Amino acid sequence: MKNSLILCALLTLGPVCYAQQSDYKVTTDYTELTDTKPHDSEAVWNKITTPTQLSWASTDVRYPKLSIPTVTKNSRWQTKAWKGERVNAQAVLWTTNDLSDATITVSELKNGSSVIPASAVTTNFVRYVMTDELNKERNGGCGHRENKAEWDSSIVADVLDIVKMHDIKARTTQPIWMNVWVPSDARPGKYKGTLTVSGKNFQPMNLQVEIDVLNRTLPEPQDWKFHLDLWQNPYSVARFYNVPLWSKEHFDAMLPIMKMLANAGQRAITTSIMHKPWAGQTEDHFDSMVFRMKKIDGTWEYDYTVFDKWVEFMMNEVGIKDLISCYTMIPWALSFDYYDQATNRIQFIEAKPGDAAYADYWGSFLKDFSRHLRAKGWFEKTAISMDERPLEAMQEAIKVIKQADPEFKITLAGNYHKEIQGDLYYLSIPYGHKFPEDVKAERDRKGQISTVYTCCSEAFPNTFTFSEPAEAPWTILHAVAGGYDGYLRWAVNSWTKDPLRDSRFRTWAAGDTYSIYPGPRSSIRFERLVEGLQDAEKIRILRKELKGGKLEKLNKTVAMFTPEGLAETQKSATEMVNELNKVLNSY
Amino acid sequence: MKNSLILCALLTLGPVCYAQQSDYKVTTDYTELTDTKPHDSEAVWNKITTPTQLSWASTDVRYPKLSIPTVTKNSRWQTKAWKGERVNAQAVLWTTNDLSDATITVSELKNGSSVIPASAVTTNFVRYVMTDELNKERNGGCGHRENKAEWDSSIVADVLDIVKMHDIKARTTQPIWMNVWVPSDARPGKYKGTLTVSGKNFQPMNLQVEIDVLNRTLPEPQDWKFHLDLWQNPYSVARFYNVPLWSKEHFDAMLPIMKMLANAGQRAITTSIMHKPWAGQTEDHFDSMVFRMKKIDGTWEYDYTVFDKWVEFMMNEVGIKDLISCYTMIPWALSFDYYDQATNRIQFIEAKPGDAAYADYWGSFLKDFSRHLRAKGWFEKTAISMDERPLEAMQEAIKVIKQADPEFKITLAGNYHKEIQGDLYYLSIPYGHKFPEDVKAERDRKGQISTVYTCCSEAFPNTFTFSEPAEAPWTILHAVAGGYDGYLRWAVNSWTKDPLRDSRFRTWAAGDTYSIYPGPRSSIRFERLVEGLQDAEKIRILRKELKGGKLEKLNKTVAMFTPEGLAETQKSATEMVNELNKVLNSY
Repeated sequence: MKNSLILCALLTLGPVCYAQQSDYKVTTDYTELTDTKPHDSEAVWNKITTPTQLSWASTDVRYPKLSIPTVTKNSRWQTKAWKGERVNAQAVLWTTNDLSDATITVSELKNGSSVIPASAVTTNFVRYVMTDELNKERNGGCGHRENKAEWDSSIVADVLDIVKMHDIKARTTQPIWMNVWVPSDARPGKYKGTLTVSGKNFQPMNLQVEIDVLNRTLPEPQDWKFHLDLWQNPYSVARFYNVPLWSKEHFDAMLPIMKMLANAGQRAITTSIMHKPWAGQTEDHFDSMVFRMKKIDGTWEYDYTVFDKWVEFMMNEVGIKDLISCYTMIPWALSFDYYDQATNRIQFIEAKPGDAAYADYWGSFLKDFSRHLRAKGWFEKTAISMDERPLEAMQEAIKVIKQADPEFKITLAGNYHKEIQGDLYYLSIPYGHKFPEDVKAERDRKGQISTVYTCCSEAFPNTFTFSEPAEAPWTILHAVAGGYDGYLRWAVNSWTKDPLRDSRFRTWAAGDTYSIYPGPRSSIRFERLVEGLQDAEKIRILRKELKGGKLEKLNKTVAMFTPEGLAETQKSATEMVNELNKVLNSY
Repeated sequence: MKNSLILCALLTLGPVCYAQQSDYKVTTDYTELTDTKPHDSEAVWNKITTPTQLSWASTDVRYPKLSIPTVTKNSRWQTKAWKGERVNAQAVLWTTNDLSDATITVSELKNGSSVIPASAVTTNFVRYVMTDELNKERNGGCGHRENKAEWDSSIVADVLDIVKMHDIKARTTQPIWMNVWVPSDARPGKYKGTLTVSGKNFQPMNLQVEIDVLNRTLPEPQDWKFHLDLWQNPYSVARFYNVPLWSKEHFDAMLPIMKMLANAGQRAITTSIMHKPWAGQTEDHFDSMVFRMKKIDGTWEYDYTVFDKWVEFMMNEVGIKDLISCYTMIPWALSFDYYDQATNRIQFIEAKPGDAAYADYWGSFLKDFSRHLRAKGWFEKTAISMDERPLEAMQEAIKVIKQADPEFKITLAGNYHKEIQGDLYYLSIPYGHKFPEDVKAERDRKGQISTVYTCCSEAFPNTFTFSEPAEAPWTILHAVAGGYDGYLRWAVNSWTKDPLRDSRFRTWAAGDTYSIYPGPRSSIRFERLVEGLQDAEKIRILRKELKGGKLEKLNKTVAMFTPEGLAETQKSATEMVNELNKVLNSY
């Protein structure tokens, strides 16, 4: 990669050069991996009398690529929506012939003289990515997966492609995703329009779109109250786009990705204040965004150029500005790097919380960091962030932080510990764990944030590439049902080597490390997650307004989004989410 | 080592702590390795009637440790010396009994009312170090020696210990080295004194010392005209003394080592301007003394803290101030490091002279370096230094240097190339190679330095630990005979892992990498080298003064210090050096 980078620099080929990765470019078409799973035979396909068909389908289903989709043909899609809401629909096209240069267009949606412009509508060809499966015991997706052959792999529909013209092979199903972002100022009423698939060698096919815009308004994402925290990985972007880290090209590539997060209500900026805060567990490890030099006179010098540039970009360009999470003072490998002026090399201090060397390394940094953050006006928004570590280690780390600046905010994604929860401005605990009611109330009073997280541990609910699409909103609605302030996931774009085609990784079930693809391309998972986030905001608004039986019904429906609710109702995530959706649009 | 360092810091044990290495301390006694070579048996030793004996011996001989020395017993040592000259003598003690707490004392040396004080006399127990041998073909000492078993190893007398009290085992020979630095203001005449070896369980033994001080004065070493260049390795010192690099303790440890060099007439300060200028060929590789950061805006930032501190120490504390040699722009591995602000890692540029990336990396550095050196007032003393590389590469490098600052001095230790010699302020060529007479004359006119070097290539003359002691002065006298301005050797203290006990290294014949031992302890090799350097100065002085037959005799004697002279006279280095010594003290 270094060579190609240098080549780029010398030839000044610009984007054409740096956008190249593997055999496809970030923004152009690519060939999916081959699925070896059983599927409808040529004979079965040949029984179809209408060679190419198009129908509305369900956003709850990942339609197999090589089989005839199981759908009741339907050319009219109807939905309700709040003003400012994004609504998703899925259509499927299946064909016995090769189709060339297929494109999707959507007309403006009209309601008398009122219009939802075509620019509010996004359509994507849904693409297929390689996935694997849960652990053999079906109890989660954690652990190493070095040998891909040990896992049952298949391709699944997930990627929402940005390539607008696509060849569709004979005897395949091509799902089409449609998203309509209803303008906040749309006049309530029924809007109608047409989705058209056309191409070189087939007649255009139409589907009807009908959105009943309700007289309710969903606030802008930045005003949502749900505390969403999906960790960003700038290093993945630089690698995949093959651009110099923190260069203009790098930020250009990150902008639309991070905007997707901002539009989902993301609250926190993920920053790294040391080398490999998570021991390099992702394909692209995090480096330190802070430069620390130990000088030969024994003093420390810090430089925040990278940290500042990343934070300023996220705040000013992207609009994510609530929290700066700084990882981490207690990495899994207790080894801390610095640039050593004496040797002109990077050296490592091996020290654990409680050691004098640990307190020296971190204490002196945190004092300087506090000074810098205050000068920047960021101190109140910044938190020193930890992952689950032994309680004693966390207590010692907290001591060092408080000694450096008693006003430093601290966050933890880990188990609930009564001994330190009071020190934690923001505490995210695992799915299935609960905050004691009085503690949660006390935390609310103090303005402390208390959320829930999922990771590889959960067989359900999850957002692996093979997870049911409805598990994404279900997860968010579970956070609401459980009385949490929000939801945390440790990775949103920690891409695999070949992320567009293969979501499998050397650890964890496929898709664990990202739900936004390069391009950026959204995913069924990410769009459905946003639906959950919108629902969470709707619930919040309706709960403030509704009373009596209506409120009771809403609360009862929401309360089912728990393991107990699943057991009690025997409903699937899909059923629950759809049922709640109806309720939320019924007032 | 890192751990023990931290331990030191925490316990603040000071020198006791950092002086520890292996199982001995830098300044205390240690146990030599065992020699497995055949030696005089117990029976042979038991034939000796006088159990403990002491005699003057020869500085030309490394007396075996476990055999009775071959000496004609002699209790009076007589020599001639110039004022300001250092003269060496060797005595041997051999014993059939264990001797405890042996110490050596020397009285002041008296000449009537004139005195050479005892403080002008240094005595050392000579210690034994493990050595190996020439290559199997006996044609040199180059190449890898990973498997020590493949080489015939033995212990040889070389180290001049600084430990002043020593137990001497039964049936061993203990050589004793004596050096008298005749004061520059000593009154000419015969000075007499006594060397005494005494101890706990034996009667004191005396030897007579007699120095005839001539009415000639050897200038102070800093005024010698011979251009001596023995490359220093600060990194070895930090490692062996287990002190933080460039700390006060490190400089304290280096001071007496570098003073030894200054007192030998060393001219150049060895600095490294990149990581591993010689691909880490020594036990302790050189790091960059310059910090270079590539910033995310594409500009470069340089810091010279380490470089400045080292140079200032050498100039102001040690007194070596003629030349700052900066290694190197053309390392053997064409890989150039820099600190990358983006990744907060050290990155490497792979580029060769002639590449745009090479010119960018070095050009931008050299411009800044020139600015810095001029600000420091060092520009005139600084040279960008190269080792032998392909001619084209050197030409390209010279282009880059001249482009950055046309006044930059350049040096090369390598073959003579007529194409570039004019650009080389200081050119050292290999033993056996010659400067064309007209070129040398032209270089002299221009004030350019032209010297000769030896390294592992030479079976003779050399300063391996097994080389004949007289080869050291012979080498220097060869430089004089060959009309060179001086002598270069690439290492003077690049220590092995266990340098006091084992001079063998993974490459090259033993002792190639150092002639000064930790302590610092001098060596037979280093003291004899200084003799050669003194002789060179004496020759220079006498050549200016002598005329006719006397000058002819001197020049004829000197001219023999060549391969041709050896062949012609059939004399050994020892014979030649002793013969010249007599001539030099005869005027």
